[in-house]
Amino acid sequence: MLPNANWNYPTTIWFGNGRIKALPEALIALGIRKPLFVTDEGLAALAIVKDSLAILDQAGIDYQCYTDVQGNPTGANVDGGVALFRRDAHDGVIAFGGGSALDAGKAIALLAGQQRPLWDFEDVDDNWTRVDASAVAPVLAVPTTAGTGSEVGRAAVILDQQAQRKKIIFHPKMLPGIIISDPQLSLGLPANITAWTGIDAMVHAVEAYCAPGFHPMADGIAIEAIRMISRYLPQAVADGSNLEARGQMLVAASMGATAFQKGLGSVHSVSHVLGALYNLHHGLANAIILPYGLAQNAAVIEQRMDYLLRVLELPGKGTRGFIDFVLSLREQLAIPHTLAEVDISDQRAGEIGRLAFADPSTPSNAKPVDAKELEQLFIAAVHGKLESLR
Amino acid sequence: MLPNANWNYPTTIWFGNGRIKALPEALIALGIRKPLFVTDEGLAALAIVKDSLAILDQAGIDYQCYTDVQGNPTGANVDGGVALFRRDAHDGVIAFGGGSALDAGKAIALLAGQQRPLWDFEDVDDNWTRVDASAVAPVLAVPTTAGTGSEVGRAAVILDQQAQRKKIIFHPKMLPGIIISDPQLSLGLPANITAWTGIDAMVHAVEAYCAPGFHPMADGIAIEAIRMISRYLPQAVADGSNLEARGQMLVAASMGATAFQKGLGSVHSVSHVLGALYNLHHGLANAIILPYGLAQNAAVIEQRMDYLLRVLELPGKGTRGFIDFVLSLREQLAIPHTLAEVDISDQRAGEIGRLAFADPSTPSNAKPVDAKELEQLFIAAVHGKLESLR
Repeated sequence: MLPNANWNYPTTIWFGNGRIKALPEALIALGIRKPLFVTDEGLAALAIVKDSLAILDQAGIDYQCYTDVQGNPTGANVDGGVALFRRDAHDGVIAFGGGSALDAGKAIALLAGQQRPLWDFEDVDDNWTRVDASAVAPVLAVPTTAGTGSEVGRAAVILDQQAQRKKIIFHPKMLPGIIISDPQLSLGLPANITAWTGIDAMVHAVEAYCAPGFHPMADGIAIEAIRMISRYLPQAVADGSNLEARGQMLVAASMGATAFQKGLGSVHSVSHVLGALYNLHHGLANAIILPYGLAQNAAVIEQRMDYLLRVLELPGKGTRGFIDFVLSLREQLAIPHTLAEVDISDQRAGEIGRLAFADPSTPSNAKPVDAKELEQLFIAAVHGKLESLR
Repeated sequence: MLPNANWNYPTTIWFGNGRIKALPEALIALGIRKPLFVTDEGLAALAIVKDSLAILDQAGIDYQCYTDVQGNPTGANVDGGVALFRRDAHDGVIAFGGGSALDAGKAIALLAGQQRPLWDFEDVDDNWTRVDASAVAPVLAVPTTAGTGSEVGRAAVILDQQAQRKKIIFHPKMLPGIIISDPQLSLGLPANITAWTGIDAMVHAVEAYCAPGFHPMADGIAIEAIRMISRYLPQAVADGSNLEARGQMLVAASMGATAFQKGLGSVHSVSHVLGALYNLHHGLANAIILPYGLAQNAAVIEQRMDYLLRVLELPGKGTRGFIDFVLSLREQLAIPHTLAEVDISDQRAGEIGRLAFADPSTPSNAKPVDAKELEQLFIAAVHGKLESLR
């Protein structure tokens, strides 16, 4: 069984089975006396939330829950939390759950002390400098899925329902001050969600590694994450009670997201659009599109793919060899090969190409791509035409 | 040529050739208006210091230099800087140079706002909690050698002359807020210092990777650093004007030190003692001792060594294979094989074993070692008896 461990980059991480018991200690370390406990509707009824609240009760901590957080958290979800935070004079946030709860919690902590509305802090130009940094409340993050990695990120993705668009809210102080990373909290995750979120972490690491910037620390973290995921994701999916596999995946997901500060790529560009248009699960979308994205980038990533194959002790050469590995991993995880299998047709291909081109992940794709190429990538993924991209 | 890049873990790093021109911008970002510029006696006369001060002059920044920093900085060196800092009401430190200047600068920034003497903050038990964290001055670090990695560390090694012992001063806020990592500043480093400091970075990464803790992010960073050093250190030594090699080494050194927050091992334990007793250069000591340390740890690191060989595309198997690589790298860098060649005999072996055992690096060695084993390690390194440790 994995031991307890404390790490301090990219932020302070307290890892270990049962580590959730350290909630009160973490609050003290962050100077939080009256936390708002933010989680989503689905989680609120589960034992992992009840048990965590019992730990706060036992420590005599004066907290309040806010659970009005949807799967794709909205501006209204954030505003509701902010209103509660202000009304009852909270001084920090416990963000507990998957990416939705973590993002909502981080956004509430950001907004609670500001005068401006949320969308004024959308990650465009230097909007983030509008934030009164001294008024950002501290966040303690408790991830319960191994995928998104929002716990190590400095941004939140919030849906602007009026604009019908997901917006990225960014500020360096949105990075949680402490993460409690407790594998036991993810034991109850169903196999399909384990697979989809786990592949999401893999795609983070692969796209970050292939992104063209110079960031060797991100590369090293990404490569090690890929190694961990290739080994432990199948184990976690096959046996959800495997604590070691759960723990390795939880850490690998934090690493994937740490690495992708270097940048993502076209797989995420298309995947974000499909999430917005068809409400397709983000990890599942990434999982389906990944091999097509690799195929389209093949010309510029051959050496990196060779290296990954060597690291993973896999046969084959270059991008083709790595795609073969991804295909067999996907099959093992019961992930479909085409978007058609999840009922997405190529009807809106032109629009999807244009929207994907505008996605913030596009500029860091391994090679420059235009809207037409992203449209082709999408069409290939709909019909399973990997070879069309070579 | 490597591009400019900004990274944000373990702290904010501004990398790039000529990036030193951003000194004034970095001071603004850290809220420093009146910096104390700390460097060592040897560097003070060099063009890289004069040019950097000219950048401050041009920006109209009100700074003052403190250059009374020895190769192994002393408590008196720190106290001298603190007195100046307080007298002239500075509000931050520019720590500029190799490990000595960086450590001294970080210690000055820590101590300037405290009531207690420096040694009260030695890294023993929870002494660091004695620090008034709100009074720690911000540090801007500018490394000019690729080895120590002090720029990414939260500690400083300061010589207590009265106690005749090097002490580690630790506080999380000693981590510099911004690092300017400019390869051009290291162009003038002589070949032998380039080799010794570069191997120091390699030993950081190798010992961290072999340390027994669970810290996959550190492992990934360490492995990538080893890959970079194995490729670029010979190039930087062969041609000191090779900017790409200098840049890769500067980053790899920061990565080695980031990784070693996981722990170091017996090579550093013995090396620290030889530095204190014989004033042997730290990197040179590490370079000589490394293969012996690996040989002694062989039983527990075989798999990790296999992996490194695979990553480096080297022949051979296990620890023996990796030692062969280290021996050939050392030969290429003109580093001696034995401590006898740098005039160290085995006369004080028993004492050295005991002192090494007390070193803070010992508990994180790949396998548990006692004073007797550290004595044997030292004796083997004096006489070049690698096989005696197998």
